[in-house]
Amino acid sequence: MFKQFNIVSPSADISAELQQKIDTKTKPLGALGELENIAFQLGKIQQSLTPDVSKPKMIIFAADHGVVAQGISLFPQEVTPQMVMNFLMGGAAVSVFCEQHNVPLRIVDVGVNAELEAHPLLGDRKVAFASKDFSQQAAMTAEQVEQAILAGVDEANMAIDDGVNLLMFGEMGIGNTCVSSCMMTALVGVSAADSAGRGTGLDMAGVSHKAQIIELSLKRAERETGQIISEWSAQTLAQQVGGFEILAMAGAMLQSAQRQTAFVVDGFICSVALLFAQKVAPAVREYAIFAHQSNEKAHKTLLEHLHAEPILSLDLRLGEGSGAILAYPLIHSACVFLKKMASFESAGVSDSK
Amino acid sequence: MFKQFNIVSPSADISAELQQKIDTKTKPLGALGELENIAFQLGKIQQSLTPDVSKPKMIIFAADHGVVAQGISLFPQEVTPQMVMNFLMGGAAVSVFCEQHNVPLRIVDVGVNAELEAHPLLGDRKVAFASKDFSQQAAMTAEQVEQAILAGVDEANMAIDDGVNLLMFGEMGIGNTCVSSCMMTALVGVSAADSAGRGTGLDMAGVSHKAQIIELSLKRAERETGQIISEWSAQTLAQQVGGFEILAMAGAMLQSAQRQTAFVVDGFICSVALLFAQKVAPAVREYAIFAHQSNEKAHKTLLEHLHAEPILSLDLRLGEGSGAILAYPLIHSACVFLKKMASFESAGVSDSK
Repeated sequence: MFKQFNIVSPSADISAELQQKIDTKTKPLGALGELENIAFQLGKIQQSLTPDVSKPKMIIFAADHGVVAQGISLFPQEVTPQMVMNFLMGGAAVSVFCEQHNVPLRIVDVGVNAELEAHPLLGDRKVAFASKDFSQQAAMTAEQVEQAILAGVDEANMAIDDGVNLLMFGEMGIGNTCVSSCMMTALVGVSAADSAGRGTGLDMAGVSHKAQIIELSLKRAERETGQIISEWSAQTLAQQVGGFEILAMAGAMLQSAQRQTAFVVDGFICSVALLFAQKVAPAVREYAIFAHQSNEKAHKTLLEHLHAEPILSLDLRLGEGSGAILAYPLIHSACVFLKKMASFESAGVSDSK
Repeated sequence: MFKQFNIVSPSADISAELQQKIDTKTKPLGALGELENIAFQLGKIQQSLTPDVSKPKMIIFAADHGVVAQGISLFPQEVTPQMVMNFLMGGAAVSVFCEQHNVPLRIVDVGVNAELEAHPLLGDRKVAFASKDFSQQAAMTAEQVEQAILAGVDEANMAIDDGVNLLMFGEMGIGNTCVSSCMMTALVGVSAADSAGRGTGLDMAGVSHKAQIIELSLKRAERETGQIISEWSAQTLAQQVGGFEILAMAGAMLQSAQRQTAFVVDGFICSVALLFAQKVAPAVREYAIFAHQSNEKAHKTLLEHLHAEPILSLDLRLGEGSGAILAYPLIHSACVFLKKMASFESAGVSDSK
């Protein structure tokens, strides 16, 4: 199913003109630092000297994970549907920040282990009531991988058809840092000890237990598939140790890139979704704007692996897309300076000697 | 004149209640990272469980510096009034970002070396047409120190009387990174080689020349005052090597703290103004929110000296208050989460096991 993605890099035709416009604004050369890089990236993606992110949208994918049966999270599984309700009622961090910045929020159920009542902000694309416990068996079937990816593709299409020019993704799913660490280990080759972190607040013993479960799960999957990890296809990896919301995010990222639309990567779990998307189509990376470096240990390693320079570093470790929405005004500022600042010439300001 | 400031630390009476409110929001403990610290600081300053920064104001102080005669800046002095015009016309970085966030902007002339035409956004508090070249003589008279400080005090009072609940300060003045480096050397005791940086973009030779001018100026001042630097009072320091806009910012910071109003510290030059204000009244530090760590070399050293953890680190080196206004939405987010997020109890979300 991954053959449907045919992502091309943004054309460099506009690069010189963009850089020239950035450099003649009334400021010392390079003085807006990383905002200049974001302006340049967005200009290339949109092939425009006035890139625009004034119609953003936040989509949160939610799902549950069978592996929580192994005691790898501090919070009980019932918190997933409870937090979905909290998003819908406007009480979660991502809700109040989206309201602050007037960014529409949509929650998509791709695998929450509960019946959820219909709500105008809720999309129902449930693949199953949670994935299977991947320490014991494959997390999902081949068909479920496809369903999860397509849920993300469809959501991205709906938004872009509606005129959205910046997609932000978030996730909710008790246990999903464990799933992400497992996927990271499989994708990057770091040890489980290096990919497992505190999640919502595990102590040292909890983190160590999580790492053991990850190792055990990967061994189980290698045995069952008859392939070592490094030989796994994206399909095999997803089926063996994936999570529905992570795959849905990856699908949405891939489709966003396919349609030349920039998207914002939130924290650790989102970054793993991008890593997976990159395995499918490497050029997806060029459409990604990295919101923040989180407090989750492996996120730093992962961002380095992705050669990513995130906008914020506020020791956040909340997920939900909260880092993405907090970075949004700065991404917007990059477009604002490019569009609205005067040039040395237009303002009659003398340039440097 | 510095005896008028009697700044008290925010009361800790509200601390326990504030921390409790932060900790029961629907998020893992501490998961909003530095935003939680900002919320706590603002709550203490305002003695409120719902601190509010919805009425901010940006004040930019502008002045010129006689020491530019020594060739320490890449841009000619005429750029100061030209950039003031650019602020007033809405074409500068700080202008477009203030417009983006709907933050009122005011420019205050405390020593620009040009006659400026009246403008609704321009405050005229000119102390002189530039300070004197402090490599040759004292930068200003004792009366001028007082005038510059009082300009800032009056501006802070005007804003706070008007209901402003968060002050942001910026500066414009060709040569003022040199003045700031000189003041930093005098205040902290680091060498001129360590305090001098690239400013608007000097090369290595330019930075080294700047450091020489700073050393030479401080020696001149020690000779003239008959005191070594470490014995200087705030008054002596200001008179010998101060700058009008830097002192005005310090005055505004001191008055802001005196009236229990939080203020935002922009980049290197603003941080030096705070350092000076701290010499006058150490408790001023507790009202300061640090916007960003700039690309100017000595800023990192200075922030460490101040035990400050800035919100952003975007490699900015523009001044003007541009980093302060870019950090504003995040400071606002700290208030928004504290006020609007649901608690575990109110949202019916299960707490950790």
